Amino acid sequence: MMDFVGELLGTFILVLLGNGVVAGNVLKGTKGENTGWIMITLGWGLAVTLGVLVSGFYSPAHLNPAVSIAFAVLGQVSWGTAFMYIIAQMIGAMLAQVVVWLQYLPHWDMTPDPETKLAAFSTAPAVRDTTSNFIGEVVGTAVLVIGVMAMGPNNLSSGFGPFVVGAIVASIGLSLGGTTGYAINPARDLGPRIVYQFLPMKNKGNADWGYAWIPVLGPIVGGIVGGLIYNLVLAGI
Amino acid sequence: MMDFVGELLGTFILVLLGNGVVAGNVLKGTKGENTGWIMITLGWGLAVTLGVLVSGFYSPAHLNPAVSIAFAVLGQVSWGTAFMYIIAQMIGAMLAQVVVWLQYLPHWDMTPDPETKLAAFSTAPAVRDTTSNFIGEVVGTAVLVIGVMAMGPNNLSSGFGPFVVGAIVASIGLSLGGTTGYAINPARDLGPRIVYQFLPMKNKGNADWGYAWIPVLGPIVGGIVGGLIYNLVLAGI
Amino acid sequence: MMDFVGELLGTFILVLLGNGVVAGNVLKGTKGENTGWIMITLGWGLAVTLGVLVSGFYSPAHLNPAVSIAFAVLGQVSWGTAFMYIIAQMIGAMLAQVVVWLQYLPHWDMTPDPETKLAAFSTAPAVRDTTSNFIGEVVGTAVLVIGVMAMGPNNLSSGFGPFVVGAIVASIGLSLGGTTGYAINPARDLGPRIVYQFLPMKNKGNADWGYAWIPVLGPIVGGIVGGLIYNLVLAGI
Amino acid sequence: MMDFVGELLGTFILVLLGNGVVAGNVLKGTKGENTGWIMITLGWGLAVTLGVLVSGFYSPAHLNPAVSIAFAVLGQVSWGTAFMYIIAQMIGAMLAQVVVWLQYLPHWDMTPDPETKLAAFSTAPAVRDTTSNFIGEVVGTAVLVIGVMAMGPNNLSSGFGPFVVGAIVASIGLSLGGTTGYAINPARDLGPRIVYQFLPMKNKGNADWGYAWIPVLGPIVGGIVGGLIYNLVLAGI
Repeated sequence: MMDFVGELLGTFILVLLGNGVVAGNVLKGTKGENTGWIMITLGWGLAVTLGVLVSGFYSPAHLNPAVSIAFAVLGQVSWGTAFMYIIAQMIGAMLAQVVVWLQYLPHWDMTPDPETKLAAFSTAPAVRDTTSNFIGEVVGTAVLVIGVMAMGPNNLSSGFGPFVVGAIVASIGLSLGGTTGYAINPARDLGPRIVYQFLPMKNKGNADWGYAWIPVLGPIVGGIVGGLIYNLVLAGI
Repeated sequence: MMDFVGELLGTFILVLLGNGVVAGNVLKGTKGENTGWIMITLGWGLAVTLGVLVSGFYSPAHLNPAVSIAFAVLGQVSWGTAFMYIIAQMIGAMLAQVVVWLQYLPHWDMTPDPETKLAAFSTAPAVRDTTSNFIGEVVGTAVLVIGVMAMGPNNLSSGFGPFVVGAIVASIGLSLGGTTGYAINPARDLGPRIVYQFLPMKNKGNADWGYAWIPVLGPIVGGIVGGLIYNLVLAGI
Repeated sequence: MMDFVGELLGTFILVLLGNGVVAGNVLKGTKGENTGWIMITLGWGLAVTLGVLVSGFYSPAHLNPAVSIAFAVLGQVSWGTAFMYIIAQMIGAMLAQVVVWLQYLPHWDMTPDPETKLAAFSTAPAVRDTTSNFIGEVVGTAVLVIGVMAMGPNNLSSGFGPFVVGAIVASIGLSLGGTTGYAINPARDLGPRIVYQFLPMKNKGNADWGYAWIPVLGPIVGGIVGGLIYNLVLAGI
Repeated sequence: MMDFVGELLGTFILVLLGNGVVAGNVLKGTKGENTGWIMITLGWGLAVTLGVLVSGFYSPAHLNPAVSIAFAVLGQVSWGTAFMYIIAQMIGAMLAQVVVWLQYLPHWDMTPDPETKLAAFSTAPAVRDTTSNFIGEVVGTAVLVIGVMAMGPNNLSSGFGPFVVGAIVASIGLSLGGTTGYAINPARDLGPRIVYQFLPMKNKGNADWGYAWIPVLGPIVGGIVGGLIYNLVLAGI
């Protein structure tokens, strides 16, 4: 139960601050409008750091279904536990997005372009190319899981740990995120996309459901690939 | 007494460096003019880090009436102590703002717009909307207090601690600050606003007293909300 | 054998994230396009941090032939070991570059200029001047090796260590990298240049082989110079 | 003797990387040209971090005559030791500036404006105003010394210490540096100014000796002020 609350609150903080920084960058009339990619990547890195910090003492701080599934595949958590975490992560992500919407309330209607509004909820690719976009999410999430798994043997899982995870995510954003917007987390993308469907906004577009499976399935595959690479190549020897 | 001096000097450093970075960004003719939101948010984060670093050994480093009141509500400090801290924080913030004014002395008169000058003292919202602005300060300060309270169980309160607090504030700035300018601290906003009223400057405008209650009451409510959420949801289970 | 895999995987992560951030900055149509030098230098710093993090428990995390050769000259590793590491580093760098190419697949053909595409593989100087470019790589790599050697006596080689190395590389990039693009690592430059020769891309230019010896020989000389300075001047007294 | 070498090498690294980042920002044709104030302040922060890292095990890592003099006034080092350190710091700063000149060799002649070239050696104020500029250097250096002195009771002097000092300097740069360019270190300003006088460059202007006393005397006064404030106000109670 403590795990459940930890995953929910941690993912809440992660999505609140993560999509908060996107909103602050793309919506019209904010003080940080158009600051750019450094703002997005640093802001998302810190968002993950704070999510892990808040949940870390109460849950293993997966905050990401791709991580929970990868750890279930590797036998590090049971499938039942992984499933419970994913429910908590989805609830946390959806609640957080409602608060993002509230926080930037006057700015949604000031922003004419529907795709720009959706960007503060869910990812969209720079170039729409199914194979390439899917690979992009696989690679990004594989690096995330390899990085997180390497924290253990380096004794970086506690104390300084939330900052290590945040740095990993900032690095992935800077280096691999410019193609798909690096969902690398199904809850972070699907949860807000569901919320988008229901929230009232002027000139709201569609939620781009045709793309929605890539930032869900890509990270899940990437998490498993990363976990297997780490376990077979490094821990296996 | 050591507490009192610690809170005063810490808040002095916090406001000196915090409003210093705003001055360095908005005033005409400085070397960092118009660097933008990354400068503001990183600079404020480091300002808080240095304030905590300097005061941390001598006081609990609240440096913020919203934090002191939240901790009094939660019974972690007495109301008398909280009141004493708030006095120290207000004095520190006002003294610091005088030094900010001195540090950038030739640049105030070079900056024609009165609102720009006020921005280096106190916050103003991107869009003037009482409900939304109030919620904005509540949400930002709630995240601050939740983050700070999570440091304890993660053993991050000492050593590396000033950097954790600075990172929390930088994250709030990047992700939630673009709407109201994230006062999230009544002393940081009210102290300099009082000083603004009295300092001589060419083309000085009014101190926007109509807005002044929001960055005072919003953070106080937000701090209590954050403290209750953390205590009920996490520590309570 | 564990060393070999560690050096290979670590250099793989280093080049994937390092040239990934260059690709994300220079190629047309990415979300981070033209963010600039801060993106490059922070991204490369984090790339090195993650490479060291992933490999650090399994190998000494040289990830750089110039470091391995310098340590062989100083007698800290055998020449046989250094040679084995260099093979692993070159394989890791080349494999990583193929993944960088895959990750940004639609963007290579969208980028008309051949020199821009090569920039996401290997370095090119701002001003072509053999003596100056060679000195540039020597100085940068000497600072890298001095910095890395200073970590030991400061007890910074473990735990926080990957971040120290990343900060050293970020600093070199910001302060000394604007002339040659700071290869400071023969594997990071030569490996991707070989890969460039073979990968299919529209409007691919030549691999600038006339310059290729400088980012190989410069770092090797610089690493030895740095190691000797540190050992003679500091450790020698 | 180990102290002397440590101070010399540490100040060498500090000025090489510190004025290196200014050169990389202001000189024509570099890859980081005109990146701006974030580059300068982060680069200088990391420069100080690396200087402290390299010298820290061998000397107390003052790397700054204002710090050595403040500590002599407070009786923490003898005047003879302080004098010896200052000699080492001046030699290190001057040698480093010659290497900065060498590193950016083709770029000095490509940069037509003499004041821009001098900026990569020594500071110049945004607005020339003797009183204000002097106060600016006093305030900045006082914060530096207060911050450094606060590291001791927080147990931050070792291990993570070089990063704490770098963060203090980055914060001062962002928040207080936009007026005078924050010399806050006589060796960092006077050493390179002497070197400027002798190095060959096309269109070299004068070394602005009329201003040179401010970034020497201001930091010395500021260091003493900061040390006294810290000792009287905090440590004294």
